[in-house]
Amino acid sequence: MDEFTLIKNYLQKLTKNNPSALELNDDVFFDKKNKIVLSVDTYNEGVHYLNFKNPELIIKKVIRSSISDLVCKGVKPKYFLISCSGNKHQFNKKNIKLISKSINEEQKKYKIMLSGGDTTKSKISSFSITTLGLSKKIVKRNNVKKNDDIYVTGNLGDSFIGLNILKKKIKINFKKNKYFINKYFLPDLPFILYKYLLKFANSSIDISDGLFADLNKLINRQRFGYIVDLDKIPISNNLKAYLKHSNSKLSNIISNGDDYQVLFTASKKKRRYIRKLAKRIKLKITNIGNTTNNYKQKKIISCKKHSKSLIYDGYSHKF
Amino acid sequence: MDEFTLIKNYLQKLTKNNPSALELNDDVFFDKKNKIVLSVDTYNEGVHYLNFKNPELIIKKVIRSSISDLVCKGVKPKYFLISCSGNKHQFNKKNIKLISKSINEEQKKYKIMLSGGDTTKSKISSFSITTLGLSKKIVKRNNVKKNDDIYVTGNLGDSFIGLNILKKKIKINFKKNKYFINKYFLPDLPFILYKYLLKFANSSIDISDGLFADLNKLINRQRFGYIVDLDKIPISNNLKAYLKHSNSKLSNIISNGDDYQVLFTASKKKRRYIRKLAKRIKLKITNIGNTTNNYKQKKIISCKKHSKSLIYDGYSHKF
Repeated sequence: MDEFTLIKNYLQKLTKNNPSALELNDDVFFDKKNKIVLSVDTYNEGVHYLNFKNPELIIKKVIRSSISDLVCKGVKPKYFLISCSGNKHQFNKKNIKLISKSINEEQKKYKIMLSGGDTTKSKISSFSITTLGLSKKIVKRNNVKKNDDIYVTGNLGDSFIGLNILKKKIKINFKKNKYFINKYFLPDLPFILYKYLLKFANSSIDISDGLFADLNKLINRQRFGYIVDLDKIPISNNLKAYLKHSNSKLSNIISNGDDYQVLFTASKKKRRYIRKLAKRIKLKITNIGNTTNNYKQKKIISCKKHSKSLIYDGYSHKF
Repeated sequence: MDEFTLIKNYLQKLTKNNPSALELNDDVFFDKKNKIVLSVDTYNEGVHYLNFKNPELIIKKVIRSSISDLVCKGVKPKYFLISCSGNKHQFNKKNIKLISKSINEEQKKYKIMLSGGDTTKSKISSFSITTLGLSKKIVKRNNVKKNDDIYVTGNLGDSFIGLNILKKKIKINFKKNKYFINKYFLPDLPFILYKYLLKFANSSIDISDGLFADLNKLINRQRFGYIVDLDKIPISNNLKAYLKHSNSKLSNIISNGDDYQVLFTASKKKRRYIRKLAKRIKLKITNIGNTTNNYKQKKIISCKKHSKSLIYDGYSHKF
C-alpha cells in the first residue's frame, strides 16, 4: 500500500473536524484564523539520500526540500526546526561543525531562522524538518480552473542525473559530474516566487516526485485533464548535451522528482503579467501546456516526434 | 559528545537573532507576537522504544510524550503532525488500522487534532511528532525564584519498571506486569494542568530524562541549588510493594525518566492555592523540596536513613 492510499483510507477520516489539515491532501497545514502555515518532512538515509557522506550537502538539501513546501504555496518560510537522528560516528565533531556551518549559510541565504528541534540516537541517520510561515492565504492544490495554463519554474531533470552519477549508473566527464551532483544536493529553489504566487496562481505544488506524478496530485480531486508539450519542458544546456549522446528519454528523466521547482496553473489572462514578472525577477517560468475539461485526457505531446498520449507515474513511498 | 553540548557549542549560536528559539534551552519554540508554541520530538525504534510490537501502544506513547512538552509549559496542545517512517512489514494494513484507531482515541481523549505529516520508507521505524499550541505566555525554564517550592505531579518510577519488565530484566507477577507495562506505554499525563500552570509556576519542565536530570536542566543557567526529600517523592502503591521485595533503590528508579509528569517550582505563597487546586481538579501534586541560594548544593535527603547529599544524572542522548 503506498502512502497516498494509506493516508486516504485511514488517516484522512481522522481529520474530518479539522479544516486546517486540508484533508491531508496538501503538503502543508494551514490555520487561516491564526495565519499559521506548517509543514513537516522526514528524510531517511538509504531512501532520501544514499549515505552520510557529505553531511554539509545533505543538510542543505533537506532544508531546501522542506522550505520548498511553503514557497510553492506562496508563503515565506520564516522558522525551521530540525530533528536529527544518527550514530556517534555520523555526528562526530567534524561533521557537526560542517552541518552547523551549512545551516548558518542556509539561514542567511533564505532569511530563515533555526528555532529548535531534537537530537536523538539511531542506527541510521535521518532528518525531520518542520517549517513554519505566517500567511493569511495560500495557493492550494485542486483549485485548477477551466483551461488554465500550466507552468514550471527553473529547469527539470538535472537532479536525477546527479543522483545517477552518485549511484554510479551514469558515467560522464568530471566537470559535468560536478554540475549535476551540485544540482542534486543544492536544488535551485525559485525562492523569490513566494512573494508573487498568490497574485496569479490558481493551484500549485512543488515537484518532488516527478513532473507528471505531481501534476496528477495537483488535480487528483478535480475532473480535469491536461496536455503538456514535452518540447517545452525547460532543461539545462548540460542536460541537452547529455541527452544528445545518451539513450535516456527526457520523459523518463523528468519523472523522477527531486527538482523542487514550482508547478502551478494560472488563467490565460495572466500570461502577460507572468512573462513580465519572470523577466523582472529574473526567474525562468515556462508555460508547458494547459488543463482540459476532459479528465481522462492526460496527454503529453511532442511535435518533434509524432503526437502521442502517455501517462507517467512518479515516485511514491511504498511501505 | 551529548546532545546538550552539541547544541550549546554549535547550534545555539545560530539562533542569536531569534529570541523565539529560547536559545534552544527549552523544549519549545515560542513566538510571543504570533502566539505560536511549537515542539518537535523524534522517537526511534531501538532507542526510544524497544521494537515495533504493539504499534497501537507505541503511537499513543509518542503522542503523549510530545504533547507533554506543551502541557508542562502551561499551553494547550491543539494540533499535531505525525511523520512516520518504517518498512512495509511494519506498516501493513493490520498495523495501520491499529495505529489509526489509537490516533483517533488520543484525539478524543486530549481534544487534539491530527493536522498533517509525512510517511516515508525506512529500514527501521521512527516517529517525529510536531505539536502546535496557541498562547500568549508560557512557563519557561530557568525562571526559578529564591526559595521556591519544588513540585511534581502524579507518580514517578512506574514507567521504568515497565520498561525493565519488557526488557526481561525484572520478573514480577502477571497482574503487576500489566500495570507497569501500561504505565510505560500510556503515561498518565497531568493534562488538565495546562489550564492553571501559568497562575502559579515560576519555572517548569516535563520529566522525560529522570527527576534529577530534569531538575538540573530546569535551573542549568541559574545559580540555585536544591534540597529534595526522597521520602516525599510520590510513587504508586504497586511501586512501593515492588521496592519492599527488591534490592532496587528508589533514587535510581526515579532517575530514568519516561514519566512525563510535570516538575515545577512556585513561591511558598502559592502553597495553599496549589493544595486546593490539586484537590479540586483531582490531580496529585506533591511538594518534594525547595530551591536554595547555594548553587553548589544539590542535596537529596531522606529522613528514613541518615541525611546525605547525592547527585543523580538522568539519561542524555549521546551520539
